[in-house]
Amino acid sequence: MRILDTKNFLVPGYKTWGIHCGIKKTDKKDLALIYSDREASMAGVFTKNKVKAASVTLDMARVKSGKGQVIVANSGCANACTGKQGLADAKATAELAAAQFGIKPDLVYVASTGVIGELLPMPKVKTGIHTATGLLSPNGWGAAAEAIMTTDIYPKLSVVQEELGGKTVTFAGIAKGSGMIHPDMATMLCFIVTDMLVSPPMLKKALLASTEKSFNNITIDGDMSTNDLILCMANGAAGNKRPVAGGKDFKKFQACLDAVTTSLAMQVVRDGEGATKFVEIKVQGAKTPSEAKKAAMTVAKSSLVKTALFGEDANWGRIMAALGCSGIDLDAGRTDIFIGKAKLVENGLGQGKAADREATQALKQRDVQITIELHKGKGEATVWTCDMSYEYIKINAAYRS
Amino acid sequence: MRILDTKNFLVPGYKTWGIHCGIKKTDKKDLALIYSDREASMAGVFTKNKVKAASVTLDMARVKSGKGQVIVANSGCANACTGKQGLADAKATAELAAAQFGIKPDLVYVASTGVIGELLPMPKVKTGIHTATGLLSPNGWGAAAEAIMTTDIYPKLSVVQEELGGKTVTFAGIAKGSGMIHPDMATMLCFIVTDMLVSPPMLKKALLASTEKSFNNITIDGDMSTNDLILCMANGAAGNKRPVAGGKDFKKFQACLDAVTTSLAMQVVRDGEGATKFVEIKVQGAKTPSEAKKAAMTVAKSSLVKTALFGEDANWGRIMAALGCSGIDLDAGRTDIFIGKAKLVENGLGQGKAADREATQALKQRDVQITIELHKGKGEATVWTCDMSYEYIKINAAYRS
Repeated sequence: MRILDTKNFLVPGYKTWGIHCGIKKTDKKDLALIYSDREASMAGVFTKNKVKAASVTLDMARVKSGKGQVIVANSGCANACTGKQGLADAKATAELAAAQFGIKPDLVYVASTGVIGELLPMPKVKTGIHTATGLLSPNGWGAAAEAIMTTDIYPKLSVVQEELGGKTVTFAGIAKGSGMIHPDMATMLCFIVTDMLVSPPMLKKALLASTEKSFNNITIDGDMSTNDLILCMANGAAGNKRPVAGGKDFKKFQACLDAVTTSLAMQVVRDGEGATKFVEIKVQGAKTPSEAKKAAMTVAKSSLVKTALFGEDANWGRIMAALGCSGIDLDAGRTDIFIGKAKLVENGLGQGKAADREATQALKQRDVQITIELHKGKGEATVWTCDMSYEYIKINAAYRS
Repeated sequence: MRILDTKNFLVPGYKTWGIHCGIKKTDKKDLALIYSDREASMAGVFTKNKVKAASVTLDMARVKSGKGQVIVANSGCANACTGKQGLADAKATAELAAAQFGIKPDLVYVASTGVIGELLPMPKVKTGIHTATGLLSPNGWGAAAEAIMTTDIYPKLSVVQEELGGKTVTFAGIAKGSGMIHPDMATMLCFIVTDMLVSPPMLKKALLASTEKSFNNITIDGDMSTNDLILCMANGAAGNKRPVAGGKDFKKFQACLDAVTTSLAMQVVRDGEGATKFVEIKVQGAKTPSEAKKAAMTVAKSSLVKTALFGEDANWGRIMAALGCSGIDLDAGRTDIFIGKAKLVENGLGQGKAADREATQALKQRDVQITIELHKGKGEATVWTCDMSYEYIKINAAYRS
């Protein structure tokens, strides 16, 4: 597998672009279009929030066909909690794009991120789709990644290549994140494209496995958006031999998808709202992998742990207390905690000032690793999160004002 | 029921005091003693965190007897994650107090709050118990309430009186809270005393019911301490007729206990770390009362909702999104949301700028009420929380430094 430069790349059979059409009040880009020159396999993963945006409702129905060709994504308006009119607007958006390309509306997917409760400005969306179609380019990924940003500080892209089924296959993804938060609530959007030839069921299987290893291992503030979605399109332009389930090529395919989603998930955490640190939390020795993940996520979500990380305070008591609240099988008297390489806690007991000083040094870095050994079994999990800073409060207190 | 002034009151048969003995690095009070002149009924409620402080472990075992006479509480050191030595120190603390009063150590309960992972400075504790014993006074409640404070800004007391079983009975409580947070993690301590004559099982039953209606309805930051505990002592000095389960006197008793615990729980929220607002969240029309509580708690714990409250932003999308994540049976298209009297959302749809302006006005007050109508059934619940401010981050990022 080769990791490509995200500044200048193309994926055979795809064109894309991002523009400003006036949905955002600023002059920033707010509409992205991704186009495949042929019908492609399509898979999706959607928010589990029971309050779903119109785009999510529409795409969840469409993806059952396993087919797709175009994605229209806008920032600046979430089109969530907008009732029947919101759903009609999402459908109309897809129809506008379908008309541009002369394809069936069922092959068009939509995604939105922005303020909840406001309707899409449809005349602007119409003009935007028309303009973006005219600008489509094989090298437009940077512009598309910009157009889906909200409180993100930088665009997020990832590209890898692999020899697979006798051909060179490319996998590229763009994402936006920022708070699991922004506009009125988070929203993580991710679009992945590949020229690989792969059936819809196999694409879906691989995407679900990949999401579990990447986006489901990150947390910024524990909230889940009404608009979160991941779409993955595979158009077969590479002309590779189809992979066999569980075979060598399938494993290569999965590894490529994992590389792209993991890179994007980590970029989302690094660019978390107000984040000053990237924190990896590894739990090992849990009874099961799912208990390990539960423990790691509870620590990662604790406001107390996150503020201590911001304060560069080796406050292991908060980690221990969060573990105690996680609902897993735990023996505090056998638990070890490391920050960086410093063993702060052994068998539940603090290891004194030298360990504290070493851990404090590790906390001064931009990247921090916390390792928790439970001595209960062989379950392991790693999650990524960021710290909680003044800036987080500022961004979220002041958002609509 | 009469609500008494907390500045100057006494509870027949009790003496108390609070002093500084050097556990805290500042010159603030750090040790409280509560003494009943006779053996009393005792009941307790303890943290569900699997990592329990030594005091919690000791008291949970002792309270099985249903009897008690003395409470020793310290701030400045949590004596949590301190292993065998920590438990030995908790026992030694009880023995020191027992020796002062010439009673069995089993009748002495201990409570601690402060930094996790550090041992109690036992020579100071010994001197402190000796000094405090000499200062015990029927009017010492203010001093005792001060001695259990950590990041609390003010001491928390509540006293009520009622005619019950032919006598005047007094109920008094002191508490500390502040972040469900402070030292290294929260810690809510609450001690309630009454001169009522009541059996241990009946006291326990009433205390559990009362806790459910008060302390279990509040959240500051969603974390649960290793040291949280509530102790309730009833020494029978009033000489009332014993209440019959479910009878009129029992109901009066329960109402008194509820009044004290609810008042203290609300004081804890008002004094939440960095809190600038007291927020009541009422969910009605849920399928069941427990679904109502689940929904209300999810909204109350959401960092996004809490930062929007701090920013006085009528950002109902975040409330809706939190509801969607709560795991309850929800129909977004039938949900109404009020802030104060402003109906911001009807049947899942925003009600425009006038409603937004009215809600923003309501958000500018110190006390804010959010009402959510789910139209799914008759389940209701009310919880109390505070907003999340810069000060919260400051207190928790800088605590140990």
